[in-house]
Amino acid sequence: MSKADRPFDEELKDLKEKLLEMASRAEEQIGLAVRSLRERQQALACEVLDREEAINRLDIEIDEMAMRLLALRQPMAADLRFITAAMKISSDLERIGDLAVNIAERTLEILKYPQLKPLIDIPRMAEMAQAMVRDALNSFISGDANLARNVCERDDDVDKLNQQIFRELLTYMMEDPETITRAVDLILVGRHLERIADHATNIGEDVIYMVKGKTIKHHIEEGRFSGLKGCPDKPE
Amino acid sequence: MSKADRPFDEELKDLKEKLLEMASRAEEQIGLAVRSLRERQQALACEVLDREEAINRLDIEIDEMAMRLLALRQPMAADLRFITAAMKISSDLERIGDLAVNIAERTLEILKYPQLKPLIDIPRMAEMAQAMVRDALNSFISGDANLARNVCERDDDVDKLNQQIFRELLTYMMEDPETITRAVDLILVGRHLERIADHATNIGEDVIYMVKGKTIKHHIEEGRFSGLKGCPDKPE
Repeated sequence: MSKADRPFDEELKDLKEKLLEMASRAEEQIGLAVRSLRERQQALACEVLDREEAINRLDIEIDEMAMRLLALRQPMAADLRFITAAMKISSDLERIGDLAVNIAERTLEILKYPQLKPLIDIPRMAEMAQAMVRDALNSFISGDANLARNVCERDDDVDKLNQQIFRELLTYMMEDPETITRAVDLILVGRHLERIADHATNIGEDVIYMVKGKTIKHHIEEGRFSGLKGCPDKPE
Repeated sequence: MSKADRPFDEELKDLKEKLLEMASRAEEQIGLAVRSLRERQQALACEVLDREEAINRLDIEIDEMAMRLLALRQPMAADLRFITAAMKISSDLERIGDLAVNIAERTLEILKYPQLKPLIDIPRMAEMAQAMVRDALNSFISGDANLARNVCERDDDVDKLNQQIFRELLTYMMEDPETITRAVDLILVGRHLERIADHATNIGEDVIYMVKGKTIKHHIEEGRFSGLKGCPDKPE
């Protein structure tokens, strides 16, 4: 039977499965990119670049499935929120894939020089970001708003670790200008991982909206300002 | 009369107007953040932080308007593509607002130190990014796929300028380690501007999809790989 004849529930299930596949590919890309950096294996970075296309294709497929469901099924309430959440999540996953590519690109630069230092915090940060992506998707599939909220809360830990990495690398550069190029590249890798965690947080926020029917996204983001220094009129 | 009683066309017009307001605020934020950096005015950076909330509120409002239109009006074809494009564009504009805040935050750090050098390329990059955001939104409002494509093409120029800024700042750091902290902050400002241009490009891609009913997004992105060095099996 043609796709248009499939029951609505099955079409929603297809959409879920595609998103799960996309998420698991995106998570793999993060792992591969950071492994290539840690183990200094150029071939793995190149593999990340090669695998990017499959994620982009999934993004397009998910978007098309969602648009078809919106057009042909005219879903209401919970189904509508599910489908629009799927579109947003797909776009976050696509950006996560891009960021993994950015890490691989940086790695190719870094591998041109001798190793600056054994990497510990960056792989740890990568694991945290990967787990956030995985849990965010699980919260979507199971409609678990608590897990989604938990993902959002973990974003702060990633930010803190990134700031720590940043400060440590600044120290390296100041002590030995020879390290500058590599250290800057590692700072950028840290930023990419931090942004991956941000996208996982976006997914968590979308899941909460989907489940609860109300948005929390900017409340969480506002919390980020609380540590801001430098503006006298801002509450700190 | 109540909102639900308004003609569909007027509701679409409201949605357009909200997006235009959001885009003009986001563009303003970029200008303000970079002006605060160039003119070394702390107060302007703080203003960027203060104005962030209004953009976030617009993002939520646009999302809710779009969801209501999808649920109550069950639009088809072109209207459906318009409404889903609006949701995506709103989310890109919100990220652009976040990135302007990131630039303002970096500026507050940079202003703690004496000026590294008069800034010329960063303000130029900011103007390019602002113009891309403006044109991307105009292409959306007028349904102009050519203008949207032109926006996407300009992304390369911003990337090139960012790479130039990056290399110049590396030179500064290597010549004088005293400059490292400030130079790294300026590198991050460059990255934020580059990402703003990426989001404008995303908007352009969404407009092309909306107008033509087909996606170009990853074709353009694939083009970005063409300059990649370091993977022997990649066509260069």
